[in-house]
Amino acid sequence: MTTVTVLGLGPMGHALAAAFAAADHPTTVWNRTPGKENGLDATVAATAADAISASPLVIVCVRDYAAAESILDAEALKGRTLVNLSGGSPEQARAMADWAAGHGIDYLDGVVMATTDAIGGPDAALFFSGPAGVYEAHRSTLAALGENTHYVGEFPGQAAAFDASLQDMLWTSMSGVVHMFALAKAENIAAADIAGHAKALLGFFPDMIDLLAGQVGADSYPGDHGTIDSAAATMDHILDAIRARGLDNGVLSAARAEAQRAIDAGHGEDGFGRLAAL
Amino acid sequence: MTTVTVLGLGPMGHALAAAFAAADHPTTVWNRTPGKENGLDATVAATAADAISASPLVIVCVRDYAAAESILDAEALKGRTLVNLSGGSPEQARAMADWAAGHGIDYLDGVVMATTDAIGGPDAALFFSGPAGVYEAHRSTLAALGENTHYVGEFPGQAAAFDASLQDMLWTSMSGVVHMFALAKAENIAAADIAGHAKALLGFFPDMIDLLAGQVGADSYPGDHGTIDSAAATMDHILDAIRARGLDNGVLSAARAEAQRAIDAGHGEDGFGRLAAL
Repeated sequence: MTTVTVLGLGPMGHALAAAFAAADHPTTVWNRTPGKENGLDATVAATAADAISASPLVIVCVRDYAAAESILDAEALKGRTLVNLSGGSPEQARAMADWAAGHGIDYLDGVVMATTDAIGGPDAALFFSGPAGVYEAHRSTLAALGENTHYVGEFPGQAAAFDASLQDMLWTSMSGVVHMFALAKAENIAAADIAGHAKALLGFFPDMIDLLAGQVGADSYPGDHGTIDSAAATMDHILDAIRARGLDNGVLSAARAEAQRAIDAGHGEDGFGRLAAL
Repeated sequence: MTTVTVLGLGPMGHALAAAFAAADHPTTVWNRTPGKENGLDATVAATAADAISASPLVIVCVRDYAAAESILDAEALKGRTLVNLSGGSPEQARAMADWAAGHGIDYLDGVVMATTDAIGGPDAALFFSGPAGVYEAHRSTLAALGENTHYVGEFPGQAAAFDASLQDMLWTSMSGVVHMFALAKAENIAAADIAGHAKALLGFFPDMIDLLAGQVGADSYPGDHGTIDSAAATMDHILDAIRARGLDNGVLSAARAEAQRAIDAGHGEDGFGRLAAL
Protein backbone atom coordinates (compact mmCIF):
# COMPACT_ATOMS: atom_id res chain seq x y z
CA MET A 1 0.00 0.00 0.00
CA THR A 2 1.16 3.52 -0.78
CA THR A 3 2.48 5.47 2.17
CA VAL A 4 0.64 8.74 2.74
CA THR A 5 1.44 11.92 4.64
CA VAL A 6 -1.24 14.18 6.08
CA LEU A 7 -0.29 17.73 7.09
CA GLY A 8 -2.78 19.36 9.41
CA LEU A 9 -4.71 17.53 12.12
CA GLY A 10 -7.73 19.71 12.63
CA PRO A 11 -10.99 17.75 12.73
CA MET A 12 -10.99 17.17 8.94
CA GLY A 13 -7.27 16.40 8.64
CA HIS A 14 -7.59 13.97 11.53
CA ALA A 15 -10.50 12.24 9.79
CA LEU A 16 -8.54 12.01 6.53
CA ALA A 17 -5.51 10.48 8.28
CA ALA A 18 -7.75 8.00 10.09
CA ALA A 19 -9.35 6.96 6.79
CA PHE A 20 -5.96 6.35 5.12
CA ALA A 21 -4.76 4.34 8.12
CA ALA A 22 -8.00 2.38 8.21
CA ALA A 23 -7.43 1.46 4.56
CA ASP A 24 -3.99 0.06 5.55
CA HIS A 25 -1.94 2.88 4.06
CA PRO A 26 1.10 3.51 6.30
CA THR A 27 0.35 7.07 7.36
CA THR A 28 2.63 9.85 8.59
CA VAL A 29 1.12 12.95 10.18
CA TRP A 30 2.25 16.38 11.28
CA ASN A 31 0.49 19.31 12.88
CA ARG A 32 1.88 22.70 13.78
CA THR A 33 0.60 22.28 17.33
CA PRO A 34 1.68 18.86 18.65
CA GLY A 35 -0.57 16.39 20.43
CA LYS A 36 -3.40 16.30 17.88
CA GLU A 37 -2.65 12.71 16.77
CA ASN A 38 -4.79 11.09 19.49
CA GLY A 39 -6.37 7.87 18.32
CA LEU A 40 -4.50 7.79 15.02
CA ASP A 41 -2.60 4.70 13.89
CA ALA A 42 0.08 6.89 12.31
CA THR A 43 3.71 7.93 12.58
CA VAL A 44 4.12 11.43 13.99
CA ALA A 45 6.83 13.46 12.25
CA ALA A 46 8.82 16.12 14.08
CA THR A 47 8.71 18.64 11.23
CA ALA A 48 6.63 19.27 8.13
CA ALA A 49 9.67 18.52 5.98
CA ASP A 50 10.19 15.19 7.75
CA ALA A 51 6.53 14.33 7.22
CA ILE A 52 6.69 15.26 3.54
CA SER A 53 9.85 13.19 3.03
CA ALA A 54 8.12 10.07 4.38
CA SER A 55 5.64 9.63 1.47
CA PRO A 56 5.25 10.06 -2.28
CA LEU A 57 1.71 11.39 -1.66
CA VAL A 58 1.27 14.39 0.63
CA ILE A 59 -2.17 15.65 1.68
CA VAL A 60 -2.47 19.10 3.18
CA CYS A 61 -5.67 20.04 4.98
CA VAL A 62 -5.43 23.25 6.97
CA ARG A 63 -7.57 26.34 7.50
CA ASP A 64 -6.94 27.97 4.14
CA TYR A 65 -4.43 28.40 1.34
CA ALA A 66 -2.35 30.93 3.27
CA ALA A 67 -1.93 28.43 6.09
CA ALA A 68 -1.02 25.73 3.57
CA GLU A 69 1.59 27.95 1.92
CA SER A 70 3.18 28.68 5.29
CA ILE A 71 3.95 25.01 5.97
CA LEU A 72 4.74 23.60 2.51
CA ASP A 73 8.45 22.97 1.97
CA ALA A 74 9.08 23.16 -1.78
CA GLU A 75 12.46 21.43 -1.57
CA ALA A 76 11.03 18.47 0.33
CA LEU A 77 7.98 18.26 -1.97
CA LYS A 78 10.00 18.17 -5.19
CA GLY A 79 9.19 15.00 -7.15
CA ARG A 80 6.23 14.13 -4.93
CA THR A 81 2.51 14.64 -5.35
CA LEU A 82 0.79 17.30 -3.27
CA VAL A 83 -2.98 17.17 -2.81
CA ASN A 84 -4.44 20.28 -1.23
CA LEU A 85 -7.77 19.73 0.49
CA SER A 86 -7.74 23.00 2.42
CA GLY A 87 -10.57 24.61 0.48
CA GLY A 88 -10.57 27.99 -1.19
CA SER A 89 -11.33 29.81 -4.39
CA PRO A 90 -10.57 28.72 -7.96
CA GLU A 91 -8.01 31.55 -8.16
CA GLN A 92 -6.17 30.30 -5.08
CA ALA A 93 -6.11 26.79 -6.51
CA ARG A 94 -4.62 28.07 -9.76
CA ALA A 95 -1.98 30.08 -7.93
CA MET A 96 -0.92 27.08 -5.90
CA ALA A 97 -0.82 24.91 -9.02
CA ASP A 98 1.50 27.47 -10.62
CA TRP A 99 3.70 27.48 -7.53
CA ALA A 100 3.85 23.66 -7.51
CA ALA A 101 4.69 23.51 -11.22
CA GLY A 102 7.52 25.97 -10.67
CA HIS A 103 9.03 23.65 -8.07
CA GLY A 104 8.67 20.31 -9.84
CA ILE A 105 5.76 19.20 -7.64
CA ASP A 106 2.81 17.24 -9.05
CA TYR A 107 -0.32 18.97 -7.81
CA LEU A 108 -3.97 18.10 -7.37
CA ASP A 109 -6.46 20.51 -5.91
CA GLY A 110 -9.39 18.99 -4.10
CA VAL A 111 -12.40 19.73 -1.98
CA VAL A 112 -14.19 17.65 0.59
CA MET A 113 -17.95 18.02 0.79
CA ALA A 114 -18.67 16.07 3.91
CA THR A 115 -18.77 16.25 7.65
CA THR A 116 -15.78 14.64 9.35
CA ASP A 117 -17.78 11.60 10.47
CA ALA A 118 -18.66 10.80 6.84
CA ILE A 119 -15.05 10.57 5.64
CA GLY A 120 -14.23 7.13 4.27
CA GLY A 121 -17.89 6.23 3.77
CA PRO A 122 -20.43 6.47 0.97
CA ASP A 123 -21.75 9.90 2.00
CA ALA A 124 -18.47 11.82 1.61
CA ALA A 125 -18.21 13.58 -1.75
CA LEU A 126 -14.72 14.61 -2.89
CA PHE A 127 -13.75 16.52 -6.01
CA PHE A 128 -10.27 16.63 -7.54
CA SER A 129 -8.83 18.63 -10.40
CA GLY A 130 -5.39 18.79 -12.00
CA PRO A 131 -3.41 16.64 -14.44
CA ALA A 132 -5.33 13.48 -15.32
CA GLY A 133 -2.20 11.33 -15.10
CA VAL A 134 -1.46 12.51 -11.57
CA TYR A 135 -5.02 11.76 -10.51
CA GLU A 136 -4.93 8.31 -12.09
CA ALA A 137 -1.65 7.50 -10.32
CA HIS A 138 -3.24 8.17 -6.91
CA ARG A 139 -6.87 7.40 -7.58
CA SER A 140 -6.95 4.12 -5.68
CA THR A 141 -5.19 5.64 -2.68
CA LEU A 142 -7.49 8.68 -2.58
CA ALA A 143 -10.48 6.34 -2.75
CA ALA A 144 -9.78 5.56 0.91
CA LEU A 145 -11.36 8.94 1.70
CA GLY A 146 -14.74 8.02 0.25
CA GLU A 147 -16.44 5.99 -2.44
CA ASN A 148 -17.91 9.10 -3.94
CA THR A 149 -14.82 10.78 -5.45
CA HIS A 150 -14.97 12.77 -8.66
CA TYR A 151 -12.25 13.94 -11.02
CA VAL A 152 -13.60 17.11 -12.63
CA GLY A 153 -10.86 18.19 -15.04
CA GLU A 154 -7.35 19.43 -15.73
CA PHE A 155 -7.94 23.06 -14.78
CA PRO A 156 -6.66 23.25 -11.18
CA GLY A 157 -9.46 25.57 -10.04
CA GLN A 158 -12.21 23.27 -11.29
CA ALA A 159 -12.70 21.34 -8.03
CA ALA A 160 -12.96 24.64 -6.15
CA ALA A 161 -15.43 25.89 -8.77
CA PHE A 162 -17.66 22.83 -8.32
CA ASP A 163 -17.41 23.34 -4.58
CA ALA A 164 -18.32 27.03 -4.68
CA SER A 165 -21.28 26.43 -7.01
CA LEU A 166 -22.67 23.54 -4.97
CA GLN A 167 -22.07 25.26 -1.64
CA ASP A 168 -23.80 28.35 -3.02
CA MET A 169 -26.94 26.27 -3.53
CA LEU A 170 -26.43 24.44 -0.24
CA TRP A 171 -26.11 27.46 2.03
CA THR A 172 -28.75 29.49 0.25
CA SER A 173 -31.13 26.55 0.65
CA MET A 174 -30.08 25.99 4.26
CA SER A 175 -30.86 29.62 4.89
CA GLY A 176 -34.32 29.04 3.41
CA VAL A 177 -34.89 25.99 5.59
CA VAL A 178 -34.06 27.70 8.87
CA HIS A 179 -36.10 30.74 7.86
CA MET A 180 -39.06 28.47 7.13
CA PHE A 181 -38.79 27.20 10.69
CA ALA A 182 -38.54 30.77 11.98
CA LEU A 183 -41.65 31.89 10.10
CA ALA A 184 -43.55 28.73 11.05
CA LYS A 185 -42.71 29.31 14.70
CA ALA A 186 -44.01 32.88 14.47
CA GLU A 187 -47.23 31.41 13.06
CA ASN A 188 -47.53 28.88 15.91
CA ILE A 189 -46.70 25.96 13.65
CA ALA A 190 -44.56 23.35 15.40
CA ALA A 191 -41.32 22.46 13.61
CA ALA A 192 -42.29 18.79 13.65
CA ASP A 193 -45.61 19.63 11.97
CA ILE A 194 -44.05 21.36 8.98
CA ALA A 195 -40.92 19.20 8.54
CA GLY A 196 -42.72 16.44 6.64
CA HIS A 197 -44.28 18.92 4.22
CA ALA A 198 -40.89 20.55 3.67
CA LYS A 199 -39.37 17.18 2.83
CA ALA A 200 -42.22 16.44 0.44
CA LEU A 201 -41.71 19.77 -1.29
CA LEU A 202 -37.97 19.17 -1.67
CA GLY A 203 -38.87 15.82 -3.19
CA PHE A 204 -39.70 17.73 -6.37
CA PHE A 205 -36.25 19.31 -6.57
CA PRO A 206 -34.41 16.50 -8.39
CA ASP A 207 -36.80 16.68 -11.35
CA MET A 208 -36.75 20.46 -11.18
CA ILE A 209 -32.95 20.53 -11.20
CA ASP A 210 -32.91 18.29 -14.27
CA LEU A 211 -35.47 20.54 -15.93
CA LEU A 212 -33.43 23.66 -15.16
CA ALA A 213 -30.17 22.00 -16.23
CA GLY A 214 -31.77 21.22 -19.57
CA GLN A 215 -32.93 24.82 -19.94
CA VAL A 216 -29.57 26.28 -18.98
CA GLY A 217 -27.81 23.85 -21.33
CA ALA A 218 -30.08 24.91 -24.19
CA ASP A 219 -30.14 28.56 -23.07
CA SER A 220 -33.91 28.42 -23.49
CA TYR A 221 -36.33 29.16 -20.65
CA PRO A 222 -39.96 28.45 -21.55
CA GLY A 223 -42.42 29.54 -18.89
CA ASP A 224 -44.82 26.63 -19.24
CA HIS A 225 -43.99 25.26 -15.76
CA GLY A 226 -44.45 28.69 -14.18
CA THR A 227 -43.18 32.14 -15.02
CA ILE A 228 -40.90 34.62 -13.28
CA ASP A 229 -43.95 36.92 -13.06
CA SER A 230 -45.90 34.32 -11.08
CA ALA A 231 -42.89 33.51 -8.89
CA ALA A 232 -42.50 37.21 -8.12
CA ALA A 233 -46.19 37.49 -7.16
CA THR A 234 -45.80 34.48 -4.85
CA MET A 235 -42.67 35.95 -3.29
CA ASP A 236 -44.59 39.19 -2.65
CA HIS A 237 -47.23 37.23 -0.69
CA ILE A 238 -44.52 35.45 1.34
CA LEU A 239 -42.69 38.70 2.01
CA ASP A 240 -45.94 40.26 3.29
CA ALA A 241 -46.17 37.46 5.86
CA ILE A 242 -42.45 37.68 6.67
CA ARG A 243 -42.52 41.44 7.16
CA ALA A 244 -45.74 41.30 9.19
CA ARG A 245 -43.75 39.16 11.67
CA GLY A 246 -40.64 41.36 11.58
CA LEU A 247 -38.67 38.47 10.11
CA ASP A 248 -37.22 39.97 6.93
CA ASN A 249 -33.52 39.06 6.99
CA GLY A 250 -33.00 40.22 3.41
CA VAL A 251 -32.55 36.79 1.84
CA LEU A 252 -35.90 36.37 0.10
CA SER A 253 -36.02 40.12 -0.51
CA ALA A 254 -32.80 39.81 -2.52
CA ALA A 255 -34.23 36.85 -4.44
CA ARG A 256 -37.33 38.94 -5.19
CA ALA A 257 -35.16 41.83 -6.40
CA GLU A 258 -33.29 39.47 -8.71
CA ALA A 259 -36.62 38.35 -10.18
CA GLN A 260 -37.47 42.02 -10.71
CA ARG A 261 -34.22 42.49 -12.65
CA ALA A 262 -35.39 39.73 -15.00
CA ILE A 263 -38.87 41.23 -15.28
CA ASP A 264 -37.43 44.67 -16.00
CA ALA A 265 -35.25 43.12 -18.70
CA GLY A 266 -38.40 41.77 -20.38
CA HIS A 267 -38.17 38.16 -19.17
CA GLY A 268 -41.24 38.07 -16.88
CA GLU A 269 -42.99 35.42 -18.94
CA ASP A 270 -39.90 33.19 -19.08
CA GLY A 271 -39.35 30.34 -16.66
CA PHE A 272 -37.42 30.87 -13.42
CA GLY A 273 -34.30 29.28 -14.95
CA ARG A 274 -33.77 32.49 -16.90
CA LEU A 275 -32.30 33.91 -13.68
CA ALA A 276 -29.25 31.68 -14.26
CA ALA A 277 -28.52 33.69 -17.40
CA LEU A 278 -29.16 37.33 -16.53
CA MET B 1 -72.22 13.20 -5.50
CA THR B 2 -72.14 16.70 -4.04
CA THR B 3 -72.66 19.49 -6.49
CA VAL B 4 -69.82 22.00 -6.52
CA THR B 5 -69.43 25.56 -7.75
CA VAL B 6 -66.12 27.03 -8.86
CA LEU B 7 -65.80 30.81 -9.14
CA GLY B 8 -62.81 31.91 -11.20
CA LEU B 9 -61.57 30.09 -14.31
CA GLY B 10 -57.98 31.19 -14.52
CA PRO B 11 -55.57 28.29 -15.13
CA MET B 12 -55.87 27.05 -11.51
CA GLY B 13 -59.64 27.54 -11.20
CA HIS B 14 -60.08 25.74 -14.51
CA ALA B 15 -57.97 22.82 -13.25
CA LEU B 16 -59.97 22.65 -10.01
CA ALA B 17 -63.30 22.60 -11.89
CA ALA B 18 -61.98 19.91 -14.21
CA ALA B 19 -60.92 17.78 -11.24
CA PHE B 20 -64.34 18.04 -9.57
CA ALA B 21 -66.09 17.17 -12.84
CA ALA B 22 -63.71 14.26 -13.43
CA ALA B 23 -64.66 12.93 -10.00
CA ASP B 24 -68.32 12.98 -11.08
CA HIS B 25 -69.33 15.99 -9.01
CA PRO B 26 -71.93 18.02 -10.94
CA THR B 27 -69.99 21.26 -11.37
CA THR B 28 -71.15 24.81 -11.96
CA VAL B 29 -68.67 27.46 -13.00
CA TRP B 30 -68.55 31.22 -13.40
CA ASN B 31 -65.84 33.62 -14.49
CA ARG B 32 -65.98 37.39 -14.68
CA THR B 33 -64.82 37.25 -18.31
CA PRO B 34 -66.97 34.71 -20.19
CA GLY B 35 -65.62 32.02 -22.50
CA LYS B 36 -63.07 30.48 -20.13
CA GLU B 37 -65.02 27.22 -19.67
CA ASN B 38 -63.49 25.52 -22.73
CA GLY B 39 -63.15 21.80 -22.27
CA LEU B 40 -65.00 21.72 -18.96
CA ASP B 41 -67.86 19.30 -18.34
CA ALA B 42 -69.65 21.94 -16.26
CA THR B 43 -72.71 24.18 -16.18
CA VAL B 44 -71.88 27.80 -16.90
CA ALA B 45 -73.79 30.24 -14.69
CA ALA B 46 -74.74 33.71 -15.92
CA THR B 47 -73.84 35.47 -12.66
CA ALA B 48 -71.73 34.75 -9.59
CA ALA B 49 -74.89 34.68 -7.47
CA ASP B 50 -76.47 32.12 -9.81
CA ALA B 51 -73.34 29.98 -9.61
CA ILE B 52 -73.29 30.19 -5.81
CA SER B 53 -76.96 29.27 -5.57
CA ALA B 54 -76.35 26.07 -7.55
CA SER B 55 -74.25 24.28 -4.88
CA PRO B 56 -73.82 23.83 -1.13
CA LEU B 57 -70.03 23.99 -1.65
CA VAL B 58 -68.55 27.04 -3.36
CA ILE B 59 -64.86 27.25 -4.29
CA VAL B 60 -63.37 30.61 -5.15
CA CYS B 61 -59.99 30.73 -6.87
CA VAL B 62 -59.10 34.15 -8.22
CA ARG B 63 -56.02 36.37 -8.26
CA ASP B 64 -56.14 37.46 -4.63
CA TYR B 65 -58.43 38.16 -1.68
CA ALA B 66 -59.46 41.56 -3.02
CA ALA B 67 -60.64 39.94 -6.24
CA ALA B 68 -62.48 37.28 -4.22
CA GLU B 69 -64.23 39.88 -2.09
CA SER B 70 -65.39 41.72 -5.19
CA ILE B 71 -67.34 38.74 -6.51
CA LEU B 72 -68.64 37.04 -3.35
CA ASP B 73 -72.37 37.61 -2.78
CA ALA B 74 -73.00 37.30 0.95
CA GLU B 75 -76.72 36.88 0.56
CA ALA B 76 -76.35 34.00 -1.91
CA LEU B 77 -73.62 32.37 0.19
CA LYS B 78 -75.62 32.35 3.43
CA GLY B 79 -75.98 28.78 4.74
CA ARG B 80 -73.44 27.40 2.25
CA THR B 81 -69.77 26.56 2.60
CA LEU B 82 -67.20 28.83 0.98
CA VAL B 83 -63.68 27.51 0.34
CA ASN B 84 -61.22 30.20 -0.69
CA LEU B 85 -58.23 28.88 -2.62
CA SER B 86 -57.12 32.29 -3.90
CA GLY B 87 -53.95 32.46 -1.81
CA GLY B 88 -52.81 35.26 0.44
CA SER B 89 -51.59 36.07 3.91
CA PRO B 90 -52.79 34.66 7.24
CA GLU B 91 -54.24 38.09 8.07
CA GLN B 92 -56.30 38.13 4.88
CA ALA B 93 -57.56 34.64 5.65
CA ARG B 94 -58.63 35.70 9.12
CA ALA B 95 -60.39 38.80 7.82
CA MET B 96 -62.36 36.76 5.31
CA ALA B 97 -63.25 34.21 7.97
CA ASP B 98 -64.63 37.05 10.11
CA TRP B 99 -66.61 38.38 7.17
CA ALA B 100 -68.03 34.92 6.46
CA ALA B 101 -68.96 34.36 10.10
CA GLY B 102 -70.78 37.68 10.12
CA HIS B 103 -72.92 36.54 7.20
CA GLY B 104 -73.74 33.01 8.31
CA ILE B 105 -71.35 31.41 5.83
CA ASP B 106 -69.27 28.36 6.72
CA TYR B 107 -65.70 29.12 5.69
CA LEU B 108 -62.55 27.17 4.95
CA ASP B 109 -59.36 28.83 3.85
CA GLY B 110 -57.06 26.80 1.69
CA VAL B 111 -53.91 26.88 -0.38
CA VAL B 112 -52.88 24.84 -3.37
CA MET B 113 -49.19 23.95 -3.64
CA ALA B 114 -49.12 22.49 -7.09
CA THR B 115 -48.88 23.33 -10.74
CA THR B 116 -52.20 23.18 -12.59
CA ASP B 117 -51.31 19.91 -14.32
CA ALA B 118 -50.84 18.19 -10.95
CA ILE B 119 -54.36 18.97 -9.68
CA GLY B 120 -56.32 15.81 -8.95
CA GLY B 121 -53.20 13.65 -8.77
CA PRO B 122 -50.78 12.50 -6.07
CA ASP B 123 -48.36 15.42 -6.49
CA ALA B 124 -50.80 18.21 -5.62
CA ALA B 125 -50.53 19.29 -1.98
CA LEU B 126 -53.50 21.19 -0.54
CA PHE B 127 -53.85 22.69 2.91
CA PHE B 128 -57.12 23.67 4.57
CA SER B 129 -57.88 25.45 7.81
CA GLY B 130 -61.10 26.45 9.56
CA PRO B 131 -63.75 24.67 11.64
CA ALA B 132 -63.03 20.95 11.83
CA GLY B 133 -66.68 20.05 11.35
CA VAL B 134 -66.90 22.05 8.14
CA TYR B 135 -63.79 20.37 6.80
CA GLU B 136 -65.08 16.93 7.72
CA ALA B 137 -68.38 17.62 5.96
CA HIS B 138 -66.59 18.35 2.68
CA ARG B 139 -63.45 16.29 3.04
CA SER B 140 -64.42 13.60 0.57
CA THR B 141 -65.50 16.16 -2.03
CA LEU B 142 -62.32 18.21 -1.65
CA ALA B 143 -60.29 15.01 -2.04
CA ALA B 144 -61.12 15.22 -5.75
CA LEU B 145 -58.48 17.96 -5.97
CA GLY B 146 -55.63 15.70 -4.86
CA GLU B 147 -54.80 12.74 -2.66
CA ASN B 148 -52.39 14.84 -0.66
CA THR B 149 -54.77 17.14 1.24
CA HIS B 150 -54.06 18.32 4.77
CA TYR B 151 -56.29 19.85 7.41
CA VAL B 152 -53.99 22.01 9.53
CA GLY B 153 -56.24 23.46 12.20
CA GLU B 154 -59.12 25.67 13.26
CA PHE B 155 -57.33 29.01 12.98
CA PRO B 156 -58.39 30.31 9.55
CA GLY B 157 -54.94 31.71 8.74
CA GLN B 158 -53.16 28.42 9.40
CA ALA B 159 -53.25 27.11 5.83
CA ALA B 160 -51.86 30.43 4.60
CA ALA B 161 -49.18 30.26 7.31
CA PHE B 162 -48.11 26.78 6.20
CA ASP B 163 -48.07 28.03 2.64
CA ALA B 164 -45.97 31.11 3.40
CA SER B 165 -43.45 29.11 5.45
CA LEU B 166 -43.05 26.36 2.87
CA GLN B 167 -42.92 28.79 -0.06
CA ASP B 168 -40.28 30.79 1.83
CA MET B 169 -38.06 27.71 1.82
CA LEU B 170 -39.05 26.81 -1.73
CA TRP B 171 -38.25 30.14 -3.37
CA THR B 172 -35.14 30.78 -1.34
CA SER B 173 -33.89 27.34 -2.37
CA MET B 174 -34.94 27.88 -5.99
CA SER B 175 -32.94 31.06 -5.93
CA GLY B 176 -29.95 29.06 -4.71
CA VAL B 177 -30.37 26.47 -7.45
CA VAL B 178 -30.46 28.96 -10.32
CA HIS B 179 -27.53 30.88 -8.82
CA MET B 180 -25.56 27.63 -8.63
CA PHE B 181 -26.12 27.23 -12.36
CA ALA B 182 -25.09 30.85 -12.95
CA LEU B 183 -21.86 30.46 -10.99
CA ALA B 184 -21.10 27.08 -12.57
CA LYS B 185 -21.59 28.61 -16.01
CA ALA B 186 -19.14 31.40 -15.16
CA GLU B 187 -16.67 28.67 -14.14
CA ASN B 188 -17.14 26.78 -17.43
CA ILE B 189 -18.99 23.95 -15.74
CA ALA B 190 -21.84 22.62 -17.89
CA ALA B 191 -25.25 22.56 -16.21
CA ALA B 192 -25.56 18.85 -16.97
CA ASP B 193 -22.22 18.19 -15.26
CA ILE B 194 -23.22 19.74 -11.96
CA ALA B 195 -26.90 18.73 -11.84
CA GLY B 196 -26.21 15.22 -10.55
CA HIS B 197 -23.99 16.52 -7.75
CA ALA B 198 -26.64 19.06 -6.81
CA LYS B 199 -29.25 16.32 -6.56
CA ALA B 200 -26.90 14.20 -4.45
CA LEU B 201 -26.31 17.11 -2.10
CA LEU B 202 -30.04 17.76 -1.73
CA GLY B 203 -30.39 14.09 -0.89
CA PHE B 204 -29.07 14.96 2.57
CA PHE B 205 -31.79 17.56 3.17
CA PRO B 206 -34.53 15.25 4.48
CA ASP B 207 -32.30 14.03 7.33
CA MET B 208 -31.06 17.56 7.88
CA ILE B 209 -34.62 18.92 8.05
CA ASP B 210 -35.52 16.29 10.64
CA LEU B 211 -32.39 17.18 12.62
CA LEU B 212 -33.23 20.89 12.50
CA ALA B 213 -36.89 20.27 13.36
CA GLY B 214 -35.77 18.37 16.45
CA GLN B 215 -33.47 21.22 17.44
CA VAL B 216 -36.11 23.90 16.88
CA GLY B 217 -38.65 21.80 18.80
CA ALA B 218 -36.26 21.48 21.72
CA ASP B 219 -34.93 25.04 21.32
CA SER B 220 -31.43 23.54 21.58
CA TYR B 221 -28.81 23.92 18.86
CA PRO B 222 -25.68 21.87 19.49
CA GLY B 223 -22.89 22.54 16.98
CA ASP B 224 -21.65 18.98 16.71
CA HIS B 225 -22.76 18.66 13.07
CA GLY B 226 -21.13 21.97 12.15
CA THR B 227 -21.20 25.43 13.67
CA ILE B 228 -22.43 28.82 12.51
CA ASP B 229 -18.78 29.93 12.62
CA SER B 230 -17.75 27.25 10.13
CA ALA B 231 -20.79 27.93 7.93
CA ALA B 232 -19.86 31.62 7.88
CA ALA B 233 -16.28 30.80 6.86
CA THR B 234 -17.59 28.61 4.04
CA MET B 235 -19.97 31.32 2.90
CA ASP B 236 -17.06 33.76 2.81
CA HIS B 237 -15.18 31.43 0.43
CA ILE B 238 -18.25 31.11 -1.80
CA LEU B 239 -18.84 34.85 -1.78
CA ASP B 240 -15.23 35.41 -2.85
CA ALA B 241 -15.86 33.25 -5.90
CA ILE B 242 -19.26 34.87 -6.54
CA ARG B 243 -17.90 38.40 -6.32
CA ALA B 244 -14.84 37.56 -8.43
CA ARG B 245 -17.34 36.74 -11.21
CA GLY B 246 -19.52 39.81 -10.61
CA LEU B 247 -22.42 37.54 -9.63
CA ASP B 248 -23.37 38.82 -6.18
CA ASN B 249 -27.16 39.25 -6.30
CA GLY B 250 -27.38 39.83 -2.55
CA VAL B 251 -29.02 36.52 -1.64
CA LEU B 252 -26.08 34.66 -0.12
CA SER B 253 -24.70 37.94 1.20
CA ALA B 254 -27.89 38.38 3.20
CA ALA B 255 -27.63 34.81 4.49
CA ARG B 256 -24.02 35.53 5.51
CA ALA B 257 -25.12 38.72 7.31
CA GLU B 258 -27.76 36.73 9.20
CA ALA B 259 -25.06 34.29 10.32
CA GLN B 260 -23.04 37.28 11.52
CA ARG B 261 -26.00 38.44 13.60
CA ALA B 262 -25.93 35.07 15.35
CA ILE B 263 -22.15 35.22 15.80
CA ASP B 264 -22.36 38.75 17.20
CA ALA B 265 -25.02 37.53 19.63
CA GLY B 266 -22.57 34.90 20.91
CA HIS B 267 -23.98 31.89 19.04
CA GLY B 268 -21.05 31.19 16.69
CA GLU B 269 -20.39 27.74 18.15
CA ASP B 270 -24.04 26.73 17.96
CA GLY B 271 -25.46 24.76 15.07
CA PHE B 272 -26.98 26.50 12.06
CA GLY B 273 -30.50 25.82 13.35
CA ARG B 274 -29.98 28.58 15.90
CA LEU B 275 -30.77 31.00 13.05
CA ALA B 276 -34.39 29.88 13.30
CA ALA B 277 -34.52 31.37 16.79
CA LEU B 278 -32.65 34.67 16.60
